[in-house]
Amino acid sequence: MKVAERGFDIVKAGHIEFLVTDLAEAKKFYVDTLGFVVSESDREHVYLRGLEDRYHHCLTLTKSDTPGVGHLAFRVADESGLMAVEKLVKAKGWYSRWIEPGEERGQGRALMVEDGFGFPVEFYSKMAREEWLLQRYQSYRGAKVMRLDHFNIMLPDAASAYDWYVGGLGFGCTEVTETEGRKPELWAAWLRRKHTCHDIALTTGRGPRVHHAGFTVSDRASIMDAADLLAAGEYLKSMERGPGRHGVSNAFFLYLRDPDGNRIELYTGDYISADPDWVPVRWKLNDPQRQTFWGAPTPESWFNDAMMVRSPRNGEFAKVVAPKIRDRPDYLLSVR
Amino acid sequence: MKVAERGFDIVKAGHIEFLVTDLAEAKKFYVDTLGFVVSESDREHVYLRGLEDRYHHCLTLTKSDTPGVGHLAFRVADESGLMAVEKLVKAKGWYSRWIEPGEERGQGRALMVEDGFGFPVEFYSKMAREEWLLQRYQSYRGAKVMRLDHFNIMLPDAASAYDWYVGGLGFGCTEVTETEGRKPELWAAWLRRKHTCHDIALTTGRGPRVHHAGFTVSDRASIMDAADLLAAGEYLKSMERGPGRHGVSNAFFLYLRDPDGNRIELYTGDYISADPDWVPVRWKLNDPQRQTFWGAPTPESWFNDAMMVRSPRNGEFAKVVAPKIRDRPDYLLSVR
Amino acid sequence: MKVAERGFDIVKAGHIEFLVTDLAEAKKFYVDTLGFVVSESDREHVYLRGLEDRYHHCLTLTKSDTPGVGHLAFRVADESGLMAVEKLVKAKGWYSRWIEPGEERGQGRALMVEDGFGFPVEFYSKMAREEWLLQRYQSYRGAKVMRLDHFNIMLPDAASAYDWYVGGLGFGCTEVTETEGRKPELWAAWLRRKHTCHDIALTTGRGPRVHHAGFTVSDRASIMDAADLLAAGEYLKSMERGPGRHGVSNAFFLYLRDPDGNRIELYTGDYISADPDWVPVRWKLNDPQRQTFWGAPTPESWFNDAMMVRSPRNGEFAKVVAPKIRDRPDYLLSVR
Amino acid sequence: MKVAERGFDIVKAGHIEFLVTDLAEAKKFYVDTLGFVVSESDREHVYLRGLEDRYHHCLTLTKSDTPGVGHLAFRVADESGLMAVEKLVKAKGWYSRWIEPGEERGQGRALMVEDGFGFPVEFYSKMAREEWLLQRYQSYRGAKVMRLDHFNIMLPDAASAYDWYVGGLGFGCTEVTETEGRKPELWAAWLRRKHTCHDIALTTGRGPRVHHAGFTVSDRASIMDAADLLAAGEYLKSMERGPGRHGVSNAFFLYLRDPDGNRIELYTGDYISADPDWVPVRWKLNDPQRQTFWGAPTPESWFNDAMMVRSPRNGEFAKVVAPKIRDRPDYLLSVR
Repeated sequence: MKVAERGFDIVKAGHIEFLVTDLAEAKKFYVDTLGFVVSESDREHVYLRGLEDRYHHCLTLTKSDTPGVGHLAFRVADESGLMAVEKLVKAKGWYSRWIEPGEERGQGRALMVEDGFGFPVEFYSKMAREEWLLQRYQSYRGAKVMRLDHFNIMLPDAASAYDWYVGGLGFGCTEVTETEGRKPELWAAWLRRKHTCHDIALTTGRGPRVHHAGFTVSDRASIMDAADLLAAGEYLKSMERGPGRHGVSNAFFLYLRDPDGNRIELYTGDYISADPDWVPVRWKLNDPQRQTFWGAPTPESWFNDAMMVRSPRNGEFAKVVAPKIRDRPDYLLSVR
Repeated sequence: MKVAERGFDIVKAGHIEFLVTDLAEAKKFYVDTLGFVVSESDREHVYLRGLEDRYHHCLTLTKSDTPGVGHLAFRVADESGLMAVEKLVKAKGWYSRWIEPGEERGQGRALMVEDGFGFPVEFYSKMAREEWLLQRYQSYRGAKVMRLDHFNIMLPDAASAYDWYVGGLGFGCTEVTETEGRKPELWAAWLRRKHTCHDIALTTGRGPRVHHAGFTVSDRASIMDAADLLAAGEYLKSMERGPGRHGVSNAFFLYLRDPDGNRIELYTGDYISADPDWVPVRWKLNDPQRQTFWGAPTPESWFNDAMMVRSPRNGEFAKVVAPKIRDRPDYLLSVR
Repeated sequence: MKVAERGFDIVKAGHIEFLVTDLAEAKKFYVDTLGFVVSESDREHVYLRGLEDRYHHCLTLTKSDTPGVGHLAFRVADESGLMAVEKLVKAKGWYSRWIEPGEERGQGRALMVEDGFGFPVEFYSKMAREEWLLQRYQSYRGAKVMRLDHFNIMLPDAASAYDWYVGGLGFGCTEVTETEGRKPELWAAWLRRKHTCHDIALTTGRGPRVHHAGFTVSDRASIMDAADLLAAGEYLKSMERGPGRHGVSNAFFLYLRDPDGNRIELYTGDYISADPDWVPVRWKLNDPQRQTFWGAPTPESWFNDAMMVRSPRNGEFAKVVAPKIRDRPDYLLSVR
Repeated sequence: MKVAERGFDIVKAGHIEFLVTDLAEAKKFYVDTLGFVVSESDREHVYLRGLEDRYHHCLTLTKSDTPGVGHLAFRVADESGLMAVEKLVKAKGWYSRWIEPGEERGQGRALMVEDGFGFPVEFYSKMAREEWLLQRYQSYRGAKVMRLDHFNIMLPDAASAYDWYVGGLGFGCTEVTETEGRKPELWAAWLRRKHTCHDIALTTGRGPRVHHAGFTVSDRASIMDAADLLAAGEYLKSMERGPGRHGVSNAFFLYLRDPDGNRIELYTGDYISADPDWVPVRWKLNDPQRQTFWGAPTPESWFNDAMMVRSPRNGEFAKVVAPKIRDRPDYLLSVR
């Protein structure tokens, strides 16, 4: 189904809201150390963007008693598209409500949805412009974060979410992971709207939870420099996994936990996926080079921990459910 | 006007045909030295792709008595789109003819157009798939060329071509250069379909000529390594300009002349331009950091030389005409 | 004691002989994959050098039934120095014998010693010159190995070896590791003759064994590229530890096991240590950032495995003895 | 002649004093932008070190009415060596005087010499220690300057200075440039004490003048990042030459002019030169890849401009004399 038939055009992963228990500590990590740029802040929020961003925020830090994710958001090409999304969501019988312009700072009218998988997903079209710092190299700090690249979410039933994102929202699929055996099941999928490897990855696991948000840096050197910097300061233990090379996406990565345990990925070196007849790359769950083309073994925490999501319906954290199929490769199950 | 109204969706800059006088010499340059991958070849052609490419070719070398460009080509999302393009071209009264599947190796049915500016532009939809070498790091050689990124064409009237590409073909504009003065004229424009800085740049100059084809490499180190390699071999003089940093596009670049004088750019580090409300970056022609954010002064040859284009109508090289407005910044005019 | 008083001047770690069970397999690893350059070879040996080397070999692969190290060698400034070394060795009552010019290909007269710690150490002065490939960038392959940097040896009594190397042979000490407690014991020392962090490291462990030979590469990108290449080929499991940053030496590293299990380090980014009043950097054994400033935990194999050494006296492998003090940090002991 | 016979052992290029007309402007350039570290400062001086330095200063900025060089300094292994140097200098009939401890901040007793070529050269042995910032990555800024590497001086008679440095002071020669013709004359020489390409380069030209001081950075990425930073700020025009690759030394370079026109080189990627029988690399003056293995043509200013030196005898700037042989390659003479 094409954009014309759908009536809306999702542009890209737009921004994510992280819940943090100590705004000052979070700011020290994201701004002072990693080099995110503050567009605006108030007592309860810090709105951040990357050096390549031209809009108000791609990451919001919100003061909260409990860490987790407030919502993740996709940008839609125009406001009329928001109504088409609402129609689709209503047809599914899912909760949604309109967010008024400015209710989220710097943002126009938006549709906040709790999708059938339990995730708080916002659709917005307008956002305030900010100065582009891409060539203001004096502003480059820390990990020199360029922009938000993708979300990675965990849920018990990745296949159903795949139908929604691909069939409903019009995402293209670049790569998949399937279980072994004669009747392979979809274990994970990498889906994109913008022309990169992905805007969202759906992975099988206890959920609904957000596994991480991926932020683009310019090159491998930026990741190495960030590692030196984190290790020299007080953030040695924030480096959970990597640096290494992914099989899926081919990206070079480093996973970090913020002071609250929220997880981000520094990410660089995937590919351009503009072709409409892209044949998804297929990986088997137990392929040892799938997750880690090379690099140290993935720690247990990477499979066990993810960020709870807060319901836009009642403000409570969504109940987490285990998947029916296994949530990690066999070689890790045997280790446990 | 949206895709639905236009009836076609141009995906990206697809491939370019370079005319070379000595296939063996050209192959030594592109394949043995720069590391392009040969998908297929015959007595008259070598079909090349990059390490990130999944299709048959992004660069064709064709044996010819005279160097230049045979054609440049845009990929269209589906075959029905080709007919919509034909309709538009016919309405303009421009020459076009159908290229049958396989007439250009590895390619499906295509529409060859001589546009009103004198350029041989092919529109195609299908191309044979080839093995993806992205993670076959054993295949990485030389400059480790990933993929075609863009064309840069020179013509006397960039503004008219802008109307065709943006108004007719649906390109988005990311950056422009304007002349100084109270009534600024469009001097150059960077236009994109895929979500990068550009698929084609239109620049004012003697034309119709193709200034260069830009190929993406992964990082600055790849460009430095290529420079070492070219200088250590017999290609020291092939390096015409750079390495340096562009103002426009923010890319890191190195311009090369092949043994016939055809020009390519090794290019890395631009940005993702998915946002539909992108406000073009505006540069003044005489801004010294426009072309070269930093780096050595641009040599005269870079302004004077470009590749002649061969007419698909009669096989002759298009007559070159001078522009009415100046073809380079004032500070270079005074030097001459 | 100065050079004049000693009567000899050790220049640097010169070369090492690795015993390999399959020359063809070893050559595939070192030459075809990592990019060492073959200076000469015969049925039983392959003599290798790096891109920065101006002499015949820094690594010899010797056919053997058992993997391990044949000998390690230090270059001495002139031939007269060899006799001064012999005198010192004889005073210790250690075994030594003269190696005639050409007995080891490309090498002049040399003194082969079995030192009191059980290591086969050769002292030589002359070696045949070879073409310098530093600016023959066409010859750069794989990990782009520049030169031998250092040896790392394991032995039960590092303190005694320290006395020999510093007091007897005139090495300078750049860094040390000491045990915790009120009476700290020397656990490891990094010693240099050339002006880098080290030519030899002495570490406490079951020995005499050679833990690894370190080879210099130009930058971090070379190590990342090597990792991509090894993982894409059949050498994924050859990557034992890293990439990461050392605390000691500050170098960026990747440890590899060759097809026989012999261990090398790809190493870059230490410092210049020319100053004669250098105060050694002091590390505590249990400091978690000592070995790994950042990076994944060191695998057990890295502490357990090392290369046996073959006695120059009788050709048998030296009996390995356990140290009296612990051979690894406490946090690893508790894990076992 | 060996150290024992000479009675002194020169360790390395130690530090250099730049005369600047505006301390605040100079500090903005060296500290705020390039990232040199301030060890100490007073009204008239700023004492700077690099991230790898363990001593008080490698670059002193001194307030002056006129830009130029106050003195350059070599570190000698011990204080007794200073007296041996004095003896040699007196035998030559050159001016010298003792500098008392602390007369130059952070420095012990030193011998200030005006050598026969007109250069103010200081020999010192002791310098106050400072915190090593090598692993304090939080302190890394700008160009991430590691340490002083070398001086490059211009003088009419390079051959005589060669005799003094090699024959008198015991420097080793790694590379030379000679004129063309049947009787080649020495045009330039690269001389070292520490085990790198050089501590001082002697080049033919109007002199006595100091052409530049070279400072080491860790890798090419640091130089590219510095270029981005300088261009984004107010220092675009400070970049005089490069980035590019040298033929001599094989280093990757960028030459900068400070706000007073004093010249430094950011320098990385030469080699280790520990071997005592090093055969100098020989270059011909007109070899186009000698200066620039690849990169843009060297600007005229690079050949014409250099820093005046202030006499330690009378505080006046040394009179500059033209060389008898040409001061640049033939291909540049013809251009003039």
